[in-house]
Amino acid sequence: MRAYPKRLREKIRNREFTRPTTGHCEDFVQANVVILPKKYAFDFFLFAHRNPKSCPIIDVLEPGEVESNLATGSDIRTDVPRYRIYHDGKVDRELSSIESLWKSDLVTFLIGCSFTFEKTLLDAGISLRHIKEGKNVAMYTTSIPTTSAGVFHGPLVVSMRPIKRNLIEKARQITANYPNMHGAPIHIGDPNQIGIEAIEQPDFGDTVKIEDDEEPVFWACGVTPQMAAVKSKVPFMITHSPGHMFVTDITNKEFLENRNSFK
Amino acid sequence: MRAYPKRLREKIRNREFTRPTTGHCEDFVQANVVILPKKYAFDFFLFAHRNPKSCPIIDVLEPGEVESNLATGSDIRTDVPRYRIYHDGKVDRELSSIESLWKSDLVTFLIGCSFTFEKTLLDAGISLRHIKEGKNVAMYTTSIPTTSAGVFHGPLVVSMRPIKRNLIEKARQITANYPNMHGAPIHIGDPNQIGIEAIEQPDFGDTVKIEDDEEPVFWACGVTPQMAAVKSKVPFMITHSPGHMFVTDITNKEFLENRNSFK
Repeated sequence: MRAYPKRLREKIRNREFTRPTTGHCEDFVQANVVILPKKYAFDFFLFAHRNPKSCPIIDVLEPGEVESNLATGSDIRTDVPRYRIYHDGKVDRELSSIESLWKSDLVTFLIGCSFTFEKTLLDAGISLRHIKEGKNVAMYTTSIPTTSAGVFHGPLVVSMRPIKRNLIEKARQITANYPNMHGAPIHIGDPNQIGIEAIEQPDFGDTVKIEDDEEPVFWACGVTPQMAAVKSKVPFMITHSPGHMFVTDITNKEFLENRNSFK
Repeated sequence: MRAYPKRLREKIRNREFTRPTTGHCEDFVQANVVILPKKYAFDFFLFAHRNPKSCPIIDVLEPGEVESNLATGSDIRTDVPRYRIYHDGKVDRELSSIESLWKSDLVTFLIGCSFTFEKTLLDAGISLRHIKEGKNVAMYTTSIPTTSAGVFHGPLVVSMRPIKRNLIEKARQITANYPNMHGAPIHIGDPNQIGIEAIEQPDFGDTVKIEDDEEPVFWACGVTPQMAAVKSKVPFMITHSPGHMFVTDITNKEFLENRNSFK
């Protein structure tokens, strides 16, 4: 069972897999990645702690450490399909490895991801269009502010999945069981109410169609720290590229059962 | 209702109340206090995150900030009945105010306390001898290691309450409902099994008798960071004196209901 995420991480490391990870290793917890110099690590830890819905921390590595306890033999410098390098709040470039940028004072935060609950939604008969169409999930910057901490502040980012009206309550209940993976939706229906003007133009990821019998359902998203990087103009920060997650060895089931120990 | 903790904090501030807070403002959340220079704040945050049972964080103040969101009008420099000042891992002295030591880089952590669930135990007909006798709860250093983080490492500290055998399961269930206030007991019965040699000589707090129809029941304790301060020889750290807690405006009931938002 564990061979599966390990194999995917190896493919990613060898640059044989460079796509979004949605729909892959579906039974395993996937994580958003934030890497910062230690100087900013306390501020970011506090930002995440104050915004548990968008930034649920599932692991923090010591300065310079590259292997997460959640993924044996992993290396955070090579095991993410695509990285974003931020300088002074701007995306400088995207890379498939950050080995050349690594420093001993860099602190890695792994943050829960909604891809974790997608398998449970699928198993419950709730179809997810972006997976069906082989796309990345659609993500939007909202007008909802986060709670600031130190240098970090900025708007909440959400992921959106169109859900059939008669299945929305079911989807809400299922995802509420994953409080460390963004939990229940933060909004259902009218995108304007949360400051999204053009639902057909996501800020991150790919567009998906919303059918007449569906509503857009919005979940807090682990891309929120990337907007905080932009707004706070933090001098240096590395993240995953939206949708290109770090895949752990922990199954969604184990995560649910041991929720407290992964907090 | 809220007047009560505010009044107690005022009495503490005016040095009219200098005793342990156990049994006072019983309906309100009480907190362990750890104050550190920002330089050590990330390491401590990580230590607490990795040891959620002994160090459940309920609030973190920004560097230099003195008022907690959980207690309107409070001042962390004056509102704890008794402070301990640690230098290089040794208790230097105890003070009733830390105004003269305050600096703008000091970061305050508030950590959940088992006094929060004591009222619920009492309401369920579970008698607590230390409260009955007007004493501080008995606390012990164990042989159970914590998970280290940065400079911080050390043994788990526990609080002990003698409970009648036929009520132990009830006490376990009640306290399991307070995962952010140390949760279920970590051990029941033989103190030797967790490295406590002399149950009649607590390391902190007061001795209480254990009757023949009772077992000692041990909960993880927020004094654990103080042992980490000792073991890590951190240059400077301020804590409450064991049992002399910071009393918040949040009721135990509110805390239970909004568990996630106080995480």
